[in-house]
Amino acid sequence: MAFNSFGHRLVLTTFGESHGPAIGGVLDGIPAGLSFDAPAVQRALDRRRPGQSALTTQRNEPDRFELLSGVFQGKTLGTPIAWLIRNHDAKSEDYDALAGVFRPGHADQAWQHKYGIRDHRGGGRSSARETAVRVAAGAIASMLLRNAGIQVTAYTAAIGDISLNREWHQVAPDLIEASPVRCPDAPTAARMQGLIEAARAAGDSLGGSIVCVCRGIPPGLGEPIYGKLQAWLAYGLLTIPASKGFEMIDGFANAGKRGSETNHFRDGISGGITTGDPLVFRVAFKPVSSISRAQPSVEGESAAPLEITGRHDPCVIPRAVPVVEAMAALVLADFYLLAKTNDH
Amino acid sequence: MAFNSFGHRLVLTTFGESHGPAIGGVLDGIPAGLSFDAPAVQRALDRRRPGQSALTTQRNEPDRFELLSGVFQGKTLGTPIAWLIRNHDAKSEDYDALAGVFRPGHADQAWQHKYGIRDHRGGGRSSARETAVRVAAGAIASMLLRNAGIQVTAYTAAIGDISLNREWHQVAPDLIEASPVRCPDAPTAARMQGLIEAARAAGDSLGGSIVCVCRGIPPGLGEPIYGKLQAWLAYGLLTIPASKGFEMIDGFANAGKRGSETNHFRDGISGGITTGDPLVFRVAFKPVSSISRAQPSVEGESAAPLEITGRHDPCVIPRAVPVVEAMAALVLADFYLLAKTNDH
Amino acid sequence: MAFNSFGHRLVLTTFGESHGPAIGGVLDGIPAGLSFDAPAVQRALDRRRPGQSALTTQRNEPDRFELLSGVFQGKTLGTPIAWLIRNHDAKSEDYDALAGVFRPGHADQAWQHKYGIRDHRGGGRSSARETAVRVAAGAIASMLLRNAGIQVTAYTAAIGDISLNREWHQVAPDLIEASPVRCPDAPTAARMQGLIEAARAAGDSLGGSIVCVCRGIPPGLGEPIYGKLQAWLAYGLLTIPASKGFEMIDGFANAGKRGSETNHFRDGISGGITTGDPLVFRVAFKPVSSISRAQPSVEGESAAPLEITGRHDPCVIPRAVPVVEAMAALVLADFYLLAKTNDH
Amino acid sequence: MAFNSFGHRLVLTTFGESHGPAIGGVLDGIPAGLSFDAPAVQRALDRRRPGQSALTTQRNEPDRFELLSGVFQGKTLGTPIAWLIRNHDAKSEDYDALAGVFRPGHADQAWQHKYGIRDHRGGGRSSARETAVRVAAGAIASMLLRNAGIQVTAYTAAIGDISLNREWHQVAPDLIEASPVRCPDAPTAARMQGLIEAARAAGDSLGGSIVCVCRGIPPGLGEPIYGKLQAWLAYGLLTIPASKGFEMIDGFANAGKRGSETNHFRDGISGGITTGDPLVFRVAFKPVSSISRAQPSVEGESAAPLEITGRHDPCVIPRAVPVVEAMAALVLADFYLLAKTNDH
Repeated sequence: MAFNSFGHRLVLTTFGESHGPAIGGVLDGIPAGLSFDAPAVQRALDRRRPGQSALTTQRNEPDRFELLSGVFQGKTLGTPIAWLIRNHDAKSEDYDALAGVFRPGHADQAWQHKYGIRDHRGGGRSSARETAVRVAAGAIASMLLRNAGIQVTAYTAAIGDISLNREWHQVAPDLIEASPVRCPDAPTAARMQGLIEAARAAGDSLGGSIVCVCRGIPPGLGEPIYGKLQAWLAYGLLTIPASKGFEMIDGFANAGKRGSETNHFRDGISGGITTGDPLVFRVAFKPVSSISRAQPSVEGESAAPLEITGRHDPCVIPRAVPVVEAMAALVLADFYLLAKTNDH
Repeated sequence: MAFNSFGHRLVLTTFGESHGPAIGGVLDGIPAGLSFDAPAVQRALDRRRPGQSALTTQRNEPDRFELLSGVFQGKTLGTPIAWLIRNHDAKSEDYDALAGVFRPGHADQAWQHKYGIRDHRGGGRSSARETAVRVAAGAIASMLLRNAGIQVTAYTAAIGDISLNREWHQVAPDLIEASPVRCPDAPTAARMQGLIEAARAAGDSLGGSIVCVCRGIPPGLGEPIYGKLQAWLAYGLLTIPASKGFEMIDGFANAGKRGSETNHFRDGISGGITTGDPLVFRVAFKPVSSISRAQPSVEGESAAPLEITGRHDPCVIPRAVPVVEAMAALVLADFYLLAKTNDH
Repeated sequence: MAFNSFGHRLVLTTFGESHGPAIGGVLDGIPAGLSFDAPAVQRALDRRRPGQSALTTQRNEPDRFELLSGVFQGKTLGTPIAWLIRNHDAKSEDYDALAGVFRPGHADQAWQHKYGIRDHRGGGRSSARETAVRVAAGAIASMLLRNAGIQVTAYTAAIGDISLNREWHQVAPDLIEASPVRCPDAPTAARMQGLIEAARAAGDSLGGSIVCVCRGIPPGLGEPIYGKLQAWLAYGLLTIPASKGFEMIDGFANAGKRGSETNHFRDGISGGITTGDPLVFRVAFKPVSSISRAQPSVEGESAAPLEITGRHDPCVIPRAVPVVEAMAALVLADFYLLAKTNDH
Repeated sequence: MAFNSFGHRLVLTTFGESHGPAIGGVLDGIPAGLSFDAPAVQRALDRRRPGQSALTTQRNEPDRFELLSGVFQGKTLGTPIAWLIRNHDAKSEDYDALAGVFRPGHADQAWQHKYGIRDHRGGGRSSARETAVRVAAGAIASMLLRNAGIQVTAYTAAIGDISLNREWHQVAPDLIEASPVRCPDAPTAARMQGLIEAARAAGDSLGGSIVCVCRGIPPGLGEPIYGKLQAWLAYGLLTIPASKGFEMIDGFANAGKRGSETNHFRDGISGGITTGDPLVFRVAFKPVSSISRAQPSVEGESAAPLEITGRHDPCVIPRAVPVVEAMAALVLADFYLLAKTNDH
């Protein structure tokens, strides 16, 4: 019922508007006594932060992780871990022209209708900037997962109409960060990069998809009926802005096959519960809605064409890769802790 | 944390094993004073029940709705609505040979690992029979939705490699029930029916996909951040057995397009909140795992081939249509009630 | 948000109206593999059921426990345990005169205001008959607690102005059931019994208090801040009809003392977390509201005096003893399971 | 399951250790469009802060409210309201001697057993300093309540063996703040003040009780069965450090009476639901555990006597008054919002 919170036993609560003083989070449920790796959190934020490469928005946010609680002498206390990320380069004036209009494809109108008020600057609370807090939380959850031998790795599988032509088990994880698009195949990555640059030049944007592979997962995570792991993963992943589809690999393709072909297919989950095999899923993202070519606002065709001058990514996929990893890590860590209560 | 329960303000709790005395549910949160239409619940159950056509399992269950509480003199009381569905035609002996083996593609092994015990008869709690309880709950939630002018309609969009070649807005809802496959186009339905019969004859099974259209939804349902409506829909739908993918229409196809092409595309949700447009989504199902042709059990290739003699559907899609509607109705009714708390 | 449910990891959901077809419950979270002692549940129900002695209402309900799910071959499955208790001796006609009036001290008026509808027969859902379901749930939770070496024992500490003159550690548990008032001291019990009989003869009712002692509790149950064990015990106990006060022993008396006097006082909880010492608390109950002497209804002094002819206990304390034990057992079992997630 | 959070629809999450960089909170669920009165929050904090009078600990904390999110141009946004309170005067060295010992009556030992680690400085997370965050949250909840015509007023009813000799309806609210003990009767307040000063001089501490009166509450707040308002109030109030008892007024005294005496007694709640009458309850607090006279530590009688040199209040009651109000306000605002979902 608190929809700024996420999880059951490991619960992330986030707060903050894109152009307010700060965004931040509280992660409740990390057990006591875990070594806390603050630089790992900062590295994760650096992978998501704007301005990291020529492909992303030029809003320049250092996104510095400021730890407030939950850690003492380098160890977690079992108390809530809270942190801030101050907003620095918030050019609110970019948005002044938008105070009275709704950007097409954005949540502006839905939000205004629901609340009768909104912080129009950069989307306010509905800005994807909120995902920085998730990335920090995911990095903390990953400290717990790594202790348990679990690794979560996501990569760009498609941008626009260019798809990586490899199965997940053919991918070398150490190639992911080799290109700014985070596609672990150099020639494909180069073509994707060209496509993004062309979209930016044209004032347009691109969608795409991300594949996430989770290895080292013990059997038995997930709960029957309404606790099925794939259902909670789908929920978690589809809370990411611009996400529009989720499949356990290859759910949509396998739907066209016969049981005799797919019965030994393994996606890491059976009956909602992990089998011990790698768990692999894919998330689809729509093209970002902020495009700089003139377009009608949603207020009506007769309105003057709207030019959006805020700084935006032409394609969110590269920066969404660490967000996908974060949400997967949060779900897995939550169900990892929940599984401990099955014994008596 | 109670994973046999579903929802926030409208909460369904289900219980029961496939071959125990009964399955049943408790639906908490239906407001007081609503006219209760018990025959509508029975009709919904009849759409899901086994043995309804030549295409489905021949297990003959009347699936009679037995109301236990929450209704007085034809009106809801605002108290929990509880009901039973007795198990009648449970041929447990069909499963005696399975007490010691795990059926491939089933939850048997994951369950045994997690709990160290299971009711091996027909999958016990993990049987899709549990979805009968959801269908009853969805029918009750629909009484609330209908009062609010909301209709939920699902149909078969693909079975195996045969797809309905129409957009959702071209579909006539009253044709859905015209064929036992629930595809609202007579020639396509006939081909699908033939495919299912061939699969049965071959001892094989088929996957497919279902599209669901929700009309009359007021703007403002859904909550920001972790309460996005599409995320909760994905969660709800992916708790259905054999489901493996979810997309807001057409999430995966749109991922390959440009923002200038998709920015005015409307799937009924913006920023996680309904816009007032129809809300349309698709669910992918894998082929059912119980096939009667001999196959190795998951215990190892050296084991004697396993022949599963229980009565099963070669394709779950037709019977999953009312289950998809039920889960959508439960999610929508839940967020419909939640939206009432936004005012002050 | 589902207020017919109770608990976090061990969740009880109850349903049913006093004069409907049945009351019942679903208990979700009992681990798999526990031996299920059905006769123990029936014995617990027999301790609470009406008509068990001359002191209680003469409504004659066998309160037979009918198990529906969650147990297979004598062991729990880890799935929801559901059960029914059919309503048999529901003399609804006793209440016909009450359809249009509100009984003083009852929830009738508050309920009617809130819902605009109610089942006026015997209080409907607000009847204390719902506590029979709790007693069954508590008996099941106790199977888990006994395995862990935990015992929960409650007894009558006061009825009207007669109090047991012994500290909790001076009480012999096997004397509790020796008298129908459940006070473990024969002379005091006899005086209490006389007081109840006199109240019944006068058409009046009596309040009282119950002490509950929980032994064998491991240190470490309870969670800091908003998970303090005493707070959840208070919550659980004050959901019992007619309860009006809760204290860790002797919270109200110790409030009048100095730290130098109380600093080594032990009630089994420190900072919200169990210490390993016995945990002892007291619950106060108001006199039951249904009295048979004529009294004004809450509709106004000018209304004709109301004579309530339903069958009621002049004092709920003796029958509330097993209900207090049940609520304590549910809370303790819940936090016992929760404590398992503290390790990493 | 997140035990650093409190509430259902209005959810407070708190974080922070007593001697870490900051404590703070996130309040999720305040509706959009409410005028935000930041000075009122600061005034509430000033009522609770240490060093406000000669009666309280001399730790000098300005407890400055630093708002981080949820408010834009003076109005609430409907997004989470987050804030910080920096820790300034944390004399951690006072606690160095305590790193290896457990203070009697404190949570130190229970916490160490549960987590295997603790921030020993000033109790760390278990310090009553966390209640400052609750006071800020209560002040925000009160903005919502005031809009609805609801007032919450608490006062000191007893300190040690000195009790206020007036019924709640005889108390003048504007006299409460007239004395530093917050007892609304000048002569009684003066005697209480003398008692506290004597206790401090003797190196001892005192318990007491607080009465809270909530006026203007509409009928219909609270939910049946496990949503009874008194049960959630008891829960909320007994999460305050040092609280040991809760009663709806006068629950313990009325337990000794007859129904004919108490049937028209009104405490504002019937069947768990508000009646529209004022709602009145009392909370008992034990004497604070930190006393400066030498006493054995809990490690054993043979240990060297422990002298606690941290700065502590000899009596928490005066500073607990605003904390009691805050918890009551949070519960009432939560159920006020929940009640909006009863209509259909």
